[in-house]
Amino acid sequence: MAIEMFIRFEDSSGTVRYGEISGAGEVADLPGAKVGVLAGDPFTGLSKTGEKFEVKKVLCPLESTPIIICIGLNYRQHATEANLTVPKYPVVFTKPADALAGPYDNIAIHPDAQSMLDYEGELTVVIGKDAKDVSEADALEYVLGYTAGNDVSARNFQLPDVSGGQFCFAKSFDGFAPIGPAILTTAAIDDPQKLEYTTKVNGEVRQKTETGDMIWSVRQIIAHLSTGTTLRKGTVIMTGTPSGVGFFMKSNGFLHDGDMVEVNIKGIGSIANKMKFL
Amino acid sequence: MAIEMFIRFEDSSGTVRYGEISGAGEVADLPGAKVGVLAGDPFTGLSKTGEKFEVKKVLCPLESTPIIICIGLNYRQHATEANLTVPKYPVVFTKPADALAGPYDNIAIHPDAQSMLDYEGELTVVIGKDAKDVSEADALEYVLGYTAGNDVSARNFQLPDVSGGQFCFAKSFDGFAPIGPAILTTAAIDDPQKLEYTTKVNGEVRQKTETGDMIWSVRQIIAHLSTGTTLRKGTVIMTGTPSGVGFFMKSNGFLHDGDMVEVNIKGIGSIANKMKFL
Repeated sequence: MAIEMFIRFEDSSGTVRYGEISGAGEVADLPGAKVGVLAGDPFTGLSKTGEKFEVKKVLCPLESTPIIICIGLNYRQHATEANLTVPKYPVVFTKPADALAGPYDNIAIHPDAQSMLDYEGELTVVIGKDAKDVSEADALEYVLGYTAGNDVSARNFQLPDVSGGQFCFAKSFDGFAPIGPAILTTAAIDDPQKLEYTTKVNGEVRQKTETGDMIWSVRQIIAHLSTGTTLRKGTVIMTGTPSGVGFFMKSNGFLHDGDMVEVNIKGIGSIANKMKFL
Repeated sequence: MAIEMFIRFEDSSGTVRYGEISGAGEVADLPGAKVGVLAGDPFTGLSKTGEKFEVKKVLCPLESTPIIICIGLNYRQHATEANLTVPKYPVVFTKPADALAGPYDNIAIHPDAQSMLDYEGELTVVIGKDAKDVSEADALEYVLGYTAGNDVSARNFQLPDVSGGQFCFAKSFDGFAPIGPAILTTAAIDDPQKLEYTTKVNGEVRQKTETGDMIWSVRQIIAHLSTGTTLRKGTVIMTGTPSGVGFFMKSNGFLHDGDMVEVNIKGIGSIANKMKFL
């Protein structure tokens, strides 16, 4: 039977393993729980070993990634909030591999990135096999699974007179892409446009959406991004954020030292990352 | 003695090797020449073997890259041509690893990327060791060397109403970052702001500049990009293009099927890539 949901974790001896879990409820009780250990890796195939190990630390579900591709302005409500016209194709920018962080890691915030620090809760897609010129109809066959993500953003570097309007620098600091805690595989979910998720800052709900409000669906995003461009297995796609980011709050909702940002996707679980100003 | 200039090549048996060359003059005579083979790799160290092998094909000087980071609007003349105000920091966007191409490779152009295809000749920097929070003073210690590059761009995807103003998608097609032919290492060059380069399309000079006209120097770019962000060894930085791109020519100078784009850096040699419309 295909693995429906897995985590990557460190056991009590410090060994890194993949573990099968049965659902978001179980994720909430980690660490400390015992989970069924999986052999192999997510891209060549995970299989049950029958062994159980105690979870000491839940790690980023991916060991690394070729690249993190992010979609901007992909929720109708957020487009309205930002007062922006929706362009003809998805808005695309990137983060490098070192932006990846684990689901419960503290995010170290460089002094230059502290003045307008913001969160963006996002449905995050992991590509499971190399994809190029993929049709919308076939797109989901190239998906390994789905997880929660936070597109952490230093808005002070996103302003046009600072960065010329390009988003990459503001989003590319180390640790600015925490994802997890588990990957819900395509064996367990047919339609990624029916997920609900919530972003909280220090327990206060800031974003709440259903992925059905996405302007470009996961299928459309993969078809577009793979046009003449190889999406390597392990590529992480953050599919855009709904309304409610700090930048557009009436009294601004930027993040401060010690703030805890949680992104919860129903059925997958929560990432919860504390912002630690350096 | 440190290696001053090297290529990566395929010998007549199909084996991939690194080879030492003495200068741009020698590059022009490749392939067919015999070059001194180097052991090791550029990041852990290349050393002379005493053996000579015939060059069958000159390859991309890097086998792969963690990421290609590009700087926009970095020549005073080009900023004037584009009628753009220079922002406070460098304009940053990226290309993924699969954009890398060899110095003489044909570049396959996807049908969707053909209508406004453009070139950008650029001084290209290769990072030699992991860099984070590097000062301008120390920045060049993290450089492996310099090479020529072409930031191939599908301008139709760069228009704001198409892509929301983000450059990544337009620049990220497979093969859109040919570099080479050789890497001139920091053992051979102290100051990268004193290089001259030229871009030709079908033999006609379109761009001609000295790197002294760069708004942000290589030192400043590395210091900026490494702020809170790890630049991994092998990272490729394309440092921006001077005036003369096709988009801003009076009768537009976009590339067509079969067009040959050459970027020559004096002392390093030329890349020459034919655009092959699919």
